[in-house]
Amino acid sequence: GSGADNDLYINQAVVFIEDAIQYRSINHRVDSKSLWLYRWYYSKTCQWILSLTITVILALAFIEEPSSLTVTSDVRYRLPAWNPPCGLTESVELLCFLVFLADLAVKSYLIGWKEFWKNKWLLAYILIWIVSLTDWIVSLSFFCTESLRIRRILRPFFLLQNSSMMKKTLKSINSTLPEMASVVLLLAVHLSLFTMFAMLLFARTKDNQQDKEWVVYFRNLPDALTSLLVLLTTANNPDVMIPAYSKNRAYSIFFILFTVLGNLFLMNLLTAIIYNQFRGYLLKSVQSSLFRRRLGIRAAFEVLSSLKETPANAQQLHVSTEAVQQVLQKVEMDARCKQAIMTSLKMCSCDQLSAAQFQKLFEELDKDAIKQHPPSPEYQSHFMQKLQFAFGHPYFGYLGNVVALANIISICVVLVMDADKQPSERDDFFLGTINCFFILYYLLEMLLKILAMGLRRYLSYPSNRFDGLLTVILLILEIATFAVYGFPHPGWRPEFLGLLSLWDMLRLGNMLIVFRFLRIIPNMKFMALVVTTLLDLVKNLRAFAGILLVVFYAFAITGIMLFKGAVVPLGNTSSQKGVFTSACNSLAVLPTQHLTMALCMCFSWCSALLYLLSVNLICRWAKIYFVAWWLISSVIWVNLFVALLLENFIHKWDRRCHRASLSDIEYQRTVELMFRDVLEEPTEEELMEKLHQHPHLQLCR
Amino acid sequence: GSGADNDLYINQAVVFIEDAIQYRSINHRVDSKSLWLYRWYYSKTCQWILSLTITVILALAFIEEPSSLTVTSDVRYRLPAWNPPCGLTESVELLCFLVFLADLAVKSYLIGWKEFWKNKWLLAYILIWIVSLTDWIVSLSFFCTESLRIRRILRPFFLLQNSSMMKKTLKSINSTLPEMASVVLLLAVHLSLFTMFAMLLFARTKDNQQDKEWVVYFRNLPDALTSLLVLLTTANNPDVMIPAYSKNRAYSIFFILFTVLGNLFLMNLLTAIIYNQFRGYLLKSVQSSLFRRRLGIRAAFEVLSSLKETPANAQQLHVSTEAVQQVLQKVEMDARCKQAIMTSLKMCSCDQLSAAQFQKLFEELDKDAIKQHPPSPEYQSHFMQKLQFAFGHPYFGYLGNVVALANIISICVVLVMDADKQPSERDDFFLGTINCFFILYYLLEMLLKILAMGLRRYLSYPSNRFDGLLTVILLILEIATFAVYGFPHPGWRPEFLGLLSLWDMLRLGNMLIVFRFLRIIPNMKFMALVVTTLLDLVKNLRAFAGILLVVFYAFAITGIMLFKGAVVPLGNTSSQKGVFTSACNSLAVLPTQHLTMALCMCFSWCSALLYLLSVNLICRWAKIYFVAWWLISSVIWVNLFVALLLENFIHKWDRRCHRASLSDIEYQRTVELMFRDVLEEPTEEELMEKLHQHPHLQLCR
Repeated sequence: GSGADNDLYINQAVVFIEDAIQYRSINHRVDSKSLWLYRWYYSKTCQWILSLTITVILALAFIEEPSSLTVTSDVRYRLPAWNPPCGLTESVELLCFLVFLADLAVKSYLIGWKEFWKNKWLLAYILIWIVSLTDWIVSLSFFCTESLRIRRILRPFFLLQNSSMMKKTLKSINSTLPEMASVVLLLAVHLSLFTMFAMLLFARTKDNQQDKEWVVYFRNLPDALTSLLVLLTTANNPDVMIPAYSKNRAYSIFFILFTVLGNLFLMNLLTAIIYNQFRGYLLKSVQSSLFRRRLGIRAAFEVLSSLKETPANAQQLHVSTEAVQQVLQKVEMDARCKQAIMTSLKMCSCDQLSAAQFQKLFEELDKDAIKQHPPSPEYQSHFMQKLQFAFGHPYFGYLGNVVALANIISICVVLVMDADKQPSERDDFFLGTINCFFILYYLLEMLLKILAMGLRRYLSYPSNRFDGLLTVILLILEIATFAVYGFPHPGWRPEFLGLLSLWDMLRLGNMLIVFRFLRIIPNMKFMALVVTTLLDLVKNLRAFAGILLVVFYAFAITGIMLFKGAVVPLGNTSSQKGVFTSACNSLAVLPTQHLTMALCMCFSWCSALLYLLSVNLICRWAKIYFVAWWLISSVIWVNLFVALLLENFIHKWDRRCHRASLSDIEYQRTVELMFRDVLEEPTEEELMEKLHQHPHLQLCR
Repeated sequence: GSGADNDLYINQAVVFIEDAIQYRSINHRVDSKSLWLYRWYYSKTCQWILSLTITVILALAFIEEPSSLTVTSDVRYRLPAWNPPCGLTESVELLCFLVFLADLAVKSYLIGWKEFWKNKWLLAYILIWIVSLTDWIVSLSFFCTESLRIRRILRPFFLLQNSSMMKKTLKSINSTLPEMASVVLLLAVHLSLFTMFAMLLFARTKDNQQDKEWVVYFRNLPDALTSLLVLLTTANNPDVMIPAYSKNRAYSIFFILFTVLGNLFLMNLLTAIIYNQFRGYLLKSVQSSLFRRRLGIRAAFEVLSSLKETPANAQQLHVSTEAVQQVLQKVEMDARCKQAIMTSLKMCSCDQLSAAQFQKLFEELDKDAIKQHPPSPEYQSHFMQKLQFAFGHPYFGYLGNVVALANIISICVVLVMDADKQPSERDDFFLGTINCFFILYYLLEMLLKILAMGLRRYLSYPSNRFDGLLTVILLILEIATFAVYGFPHPGWRPEFLGLLSLWDMLRLGNMLIVFRFLRIIPNMKFMALVVTTLLDLVKNLRAFAGILLVVFYAFAITGIMLFKGAVVPLGNTSSQKGVFTSACNSLAVLPTQHLTMALCMCFSWCSALLYLLSVNLICRWAKIYFVAWWLISSVIWVNLFVALLLENFIHKWDRRCHRASLSDIEYQRTVELMFRDVLEEPTEEELMEKLHQHPHLQLCR
């Protein structure tokens, strides 16, 4: 009937507008039941369950055998990790698989049969699900004793397929690969030619004293290749040339040529290529988001315009404001935004909206949330008003910064003075007294600010929240200290009482004070610019970080399988060699899932690890594994990061020059807003063409 | 008289056109005598003498006491360097000072009294000349025994002031300094806050086993600061965190935070800032060169138009072709260019040239020299023509590449097989025979190519010249080997005969073969693109390299003064500690002018040196010196380099996409041509305004 049709149209419009708000594709089924399923699937609960499932299945690696997550990394001291009984992690896994199956089924149904076969991600999802389940069955039938678990390497795929942003980024990275491969090939040619040259140059001679370079670094082809590869990471930098250099200075020409060509030219060429490729990446991605938003709104307009009650108008399509209000009631969106749209709908006196008006109505979505701070309290007394003026003034904030700086300096002085004292000689009286007074000042500052601004206004500023929270923690710490150890007096260094010693309590307090000093950041213009750039960058980097996590996870699991049981405790660590061995051990433990240590590797750390590898014979067989990891994480990922930073920063910098002042730094800025002045609005033709290509929606005209 | 006036005008026009060709400023005196002096000053001989003088005065540091330029860098083995008698280097210096005085006088005179006072470079030149001479007098009056020689640090200024390109670059760098200073300040804040945090975190405990981190890296404020500064250079990367990490994995969070914030964010921010500042640098500099060229030509036109014989034309100024020919005869310029201009002047049938026509005439200067290869010889015989076709075909070149690759592989195989053999067990028969055949093939290839292309055409290609030269050298080497050691036979490893042993001769041959393999570069498109980019970059980097040289020279001389006599031979080098000590020694010797070793430092090498410094107590006092050097050379200079590379490469890459094919790589490309499509021609008004501001030229209208 017509009423049911109208309901369907309203529901379609609601879903399309929700798609527009979330920048989702509108290419899904649009019949009543599918719409209900679609809204249910994208409800917060469902998405939260899905995210939780992905987190759980990824986190399983931390407790699955062989895991080595213990407090110390030193194989000699650490206790055996807890091994879950067979079947525990497997049942959790099965639950996860069932959730994924449901996810898969809903996704496939909603996209439609025809589209399903075109969607490579969904096909891969099914394939990986089947492989995982098969592996799970094999695992159970062996009572968890099998050593190779393919499904563990495949797990990060579930993370990847759930994020459209990550899929988009992966596509971008994929298109850069051929050029990156060219440079990597060039690097390989460079490396191999120089290796041959080095082997000819530093050949074995009859005099054993003369061929130190040969003995240590260029004994055979793999050695020579490793030496030069590590030189490319600059980890063994002067060491590798010292024997040759001390024989004849001219040998350094070889190493300089190699370093200049390899490090300075080729490595930076990689940066240039990646930057060049990613220059337009952010803009393009924001542009396509904008297109999705406009398309969703336009689709909503089109379905609303086919409502029966709308009077047919030959010239232009229209929608009734009534229908729009009906839709808005049902749409789930930010309350502030909804309010603003409702208001502007009421302000518009007409009862019909054209397509352009309809689009304009929803432009509120693109706008920045202008944060309104609650007003200060209005005091009656003249004295209170004066107080309010004095303590609400920025200068009072600056005074607070100066006091914090003074505190930092006093801590620094005490640290320098106490540097070489034995713990038993230490007297904490001076530091205790000083800190006590400073913390009292911080408390006073907080209270006076609350008095001047009112509690709600005070808390509406992030810097105040940061400040206040740390002050409260410091106060609690100070009170706890006094309660346990009494008030400071000369010779105030009692023995261990309660949870922490006095010295530890003071140290903790000092750390908090140093941390609290960061409140000066928003007061310095350049720092504020840098910090906002970095925050923006972190937002844009989420997709990259996700991909890095995926790659890292796969590497870590591969590492576990390869190096299981390879680490054995070795001798004492007092000698230089011992330190190396211990480092090498902690490094071989590393692939066994220590996200913390392994994350370090991404940032040039692995060049140092590579160096250790070349020094230590035990780990030599892990070389290829680490070279691959170095190439992917350090070289490619760091360059991607630099490219994004350049892009973000240059854009921001240019904007700053255009704007008159930077005094009103808006922390709420989004990427969409950053590019607003360069974005192109999609034309009506483009939108309509895309709408007509919709696989499930049949437009009347 | 009128004739003398006419001569003056002609001479002025000649000088202005020469200025335009050399992109020089035209703001100099323009009377007859000054013009003669000006042309004499800018003649090749004069400029060559000036360059020679600068080179000599800079090179003096290599033989002046205290210099340590010896073959080995190891203080234990090296012989005392030669000390010139007092007065020898001083007399050379005096000669140089006299040349500089003449240079100064001519420059000041030519620029004019009024302009002289505005020119800060000239004033600084005078000041430094006076200070140097005073120091020289003091030096002589102490009979060269005084230890402090200020004039040595000032010497690089003479290099700086002689290059307009370097002065321009310095101005650019100067304008970037405030922003760089902000980031360096940020780095300092980052470093100091984290140092305090580290000192609180890794404090001394009562258990000596537990505070390894404190003992080694965070004992006191300078130690902690150094540890973290070195961590910023990534040189001590995993080492610094190993003791804490093996105690508790959570400590690694501190190091990761520090590295991510410092290395990944702040260091790359520096790159972004410098890149952002230098983005337009190349374009701007090319644009100003273009302006100088157009201005010089316009000035020539203006003076020629005031020639008496030119008929007065109320509407537009004109010059007679006769006068232009007269001027062209006198101008010193590239013969090819002059010929082209003469030809187009004759082709133009008119006997009067307007300003636009005159400018157009000289556009030949901006054009690329299109290299005409001489034609191949034309053979009568049909057989010879077939031969010519076969060996002139590109496939014959590819065959040569394949053979070169086969040779490389064969050498590689022999190297791998012989890797662990004692020199006495080695049999050079196999390698000798193979190389003999390959070299014969190379000779044949060269001869056949010459046959097909003719000698002159063959030599007109740079790749052929490279190829042919190496082939001839290889042939000579091979003949010499056979002459001394006879033909190869099994067990061909006679003892040392003649200048080099057989093994050394073969090694030299192999190195040349590896080097010759570089001929494949122009055959690979991507490689060719990279190589041309790098060549362009080297051209653009000359100014930067000059400034780096200036900074380095000043640093090296300061280093000599600071560390004179600080290096003493220490024990044996067999132990690990000994190696460190020896490295540290060679490092302390380093400031004493070893350009080779010191150049390495620019490219992240000094981070490793910093690490050594922190390990070795002896050199601790040199810390500040090296930190400054690291900041200037490694951080700032490398970032400048990256910025220029990005600029160059992205421009080139974009161009490549516009052009249809890359098959005709033109090695003769200049920076001016790279930017031709974006350059703006200066307008007539701008040119005339600039001309009217000329301090010495009085224009009639």
